[in-house]
Amino acid sequence: MSADEFTVIRDLFAPHATGASARALRDDAAVLEANGKLVVTTDTIVEGVHFLAGDPIETVAMKALRVNVSDVVAKGARPVAALLNLVWSDTRPSSEIATFADAFGRDLKSFGIELVGGDTTSTPGPLTISVTLLGEPLGARVPARGDAQVGEDVWLIGGEIGSAWLGLQLRKGEFGLPRLRDGRDEMRAQAESRAMAQSMPDYLKLPNEDFDAEAAWLMTAYLAPFVRPECASIVSKFASASMDVSDGLVTDAGKLADASGVALKIEINAVPFSIAAERWAFSGGDVRKLITGGDDYVVLFTAPAEVRGAIEAAEGSQALRLSRIGVVEAGAGVTVVDAKGQTIAVPDTGYSHKLGR
Amino acid sequence: MSADEFTVIRDLFAPHATGASARALRDDAAVLEANGKLVVTTDTIVEGVHFLAGDPIETVAMKALRVNVSDVVAKGARPVAALLNLVWSDTRPSSEIATFADAFGRDLKSFGIELVGGDTTSTPGPLTISVTLLGEPLGARVPARGDAQVGEDVWLIGGEIGSAWLGLQLRKGEFGLPRLRDGRDEMRAQAESRAMAQSMPDYLKLPNEDFDAEAAWLMTAYLAPFVRPECASIVSKFASASMDVSDGLVTDAGKLADASGVALKIEINAVPFSIAAERWAFSGGDVRKLITGGDDYVVLFTAPAEVRGAIEAAEGSQALRLSRIGVVEAGAGVTVVDAKGQTIAVPDTGYSHKLGR
Repeated sequence: MSADEFTVIRDLFAPHATGASARALRDDAAVLEANGKLVVTTDTIVEGVHFLAGDPIETVAMKALRVNVSDVVAKGARPVAALLNLVWSDTRPSSEIATFADAFGRDLKSFGIELVGGDTTSTPGPLTISVTLLGEPLGARVPARGDAQVGEDVWLIGGEIGSAWLGLQLRKGEFGLPRLRDGRDEMRAQAESRAMAQSMPDYLKLPNEDFDAEAAWLMTAYLAPFVRPECASIVSKFASASMDVSDGLVTDAGKLADASGVALKIEINAVPFSIAAERWAFSGGDVRKLITGGDDYVVLFTAPAEVRGAIEAAEGSQALRLSRIGVVEAGAGVTVVDAKGQTIAVPDTGYSHKLGR
Repeated sequence: MSADEFTVIRDLFAPHATGASARALRDDAAVLEANGKLVVTTDTIVEGVHFLAGDPIETVAMKALRVNVSDVVAKGARPVAALLNLVWSDTRPSSEIATFADAFGRDLKSFGIELVGGDTTSTPGPLTISVTLLGEPLGARVPARGDAQVGEDVWLIGGEIGSAWLGLQLRKGEFGLPRLRDGRDEMRAQAESRAMAQSMPDYLKLPNEDFDAEAAWLMTAYLAPFVRPECASIVSKFASASMDVSDGLVTDAGKLADASGVALKIEINAVPFSIAAERWAFSGGDVRKLITGGDDYVVLFTAPAEVRGAIEAAEGSQALRLSRIGVVEAGAGVTVVDAKGQTIAVPDTGYSHKLGR
């Protein structure tokens, strides 16, 4: 079966674009009502570069949306409207488009985002997806990367570091995981609640007792980052500087330090890891891979030490994995230290796409 | 030479993103100030699908922007802010990125558009460019495709029909053009003013007496559509229904008719063609190819007959190629008639991309 763009838009995407702004995807442009500040971000994911050709099309759809949700949340904003540029590969079955559209539509709904426009076309190359996301700031101020002050605390919120990188290694068959001895029930419960909360495909829900809960946890972190929009409220109220961590914690912390003209000191023991990642590190894995790996999609922010208690109180029991991981100092760059304050040398491995030949 | 994404953004694109909204392209999102309605559109162009691999990289940049400017203008709006998703092919020299960025930046400037964000990444596939454009409506109302009323006039404004299609055939070497016998000086002057007005690359400016002015006119129409933002004011003041013509006049008129629940009757003799296209048709070319070919990027709108004089007065001497090409009737679909009112049968050839296998 082959499909054409007009039919695909009308039958598969228009049902997810029911708001007035979208004009049923039958116009040249969306028409939004905006009053005040608007946050706008866009990110592209490419098969073979940002996801693997064999990744489930459902999680590819979710990833395309969520990498953008992560950017909006990191600015203390609520995502409200999305545009989708779907560049479908000539070699991929057109029957998968409906599955893509369903998963994208469900994910939009779970975040309360309206589909307002986009473009659908074909390519002789790999599947390529751009999403543009518009968001409404929750407060009057939109924290930039460059607003960190010396003496502030450095925080992470929204999830753990390194799980997505480990999940990618598993997907690529780079290595197996040591089996769990304890913590298995807890991880299973967490993975189940994650899968239910953000409508993961059935085969990623844990089917039976023998299923490897650790592997599922890590692979879902890679396939469809678990972004927590609840973080936006805390960012909006308390953050001086804020950004999303997507290219590796150390690299992104370096960008924040650079933009702010300060240095960041990060205590490795305070960085939140998953049980699976900790086990991997304890059994000989290099913890530096976890803090440089990328694809975490959590929020890194700084805030004055005086609001430390207020931040913890605001997080309350939302299980956002709020972690105070370091301090802002005078100077430049990022230093990672162990429990004894000894510096851990971290090679600069932040991912930057090479362009062209 | 190979480049990486962070360097490219910092050195090549940030210089074109000088407004406060852009945050120097060093943040996760742009922050816009908006009060009232906002028009948002996005379009993707793919090498080998929407442009040829051998097209000049300067005009590829211009085309990526202008196909979106055309959508905003057709909604009676002023384009103000752009986001660029540049997916650069691994097989294309990275040295071309600077040329792309320069041309894109110059074109943004010529339209008064601010670059506020985007994403730059690599692909093993063809060069793929998405632009998202935000615009401010000039009036309180943003005309939709579905607002045409029976009895209204049908207008085109902003340029001629069929030149881009002819230009593409020339690029593909499908056929030569009959040489001009007259009108050559006029066309040369027009092509020169077009090239100067929208900063065409030097080699598209007409270098000497022997240069084929007709071919240059047609190829520039294909390579970098000549979009006239001045049209937005007339659309905003007078249009009931409005849309941009990009997939062929007859196909797009059909979409407007369908969305409005009316029929359109178009008089072929009233459709604006270039001198070169008219010559091609007079010397045996099929005029139906011109009205179904696509890539015109002009505005199709309807308006009550009572404002006919006001529309013509508003156009004044702006040389926007304002043309009253037909009427809105009861019924459905599009009819094309000749000077005697006889129907010309037009096959449905509007371009719709096939998706997948």
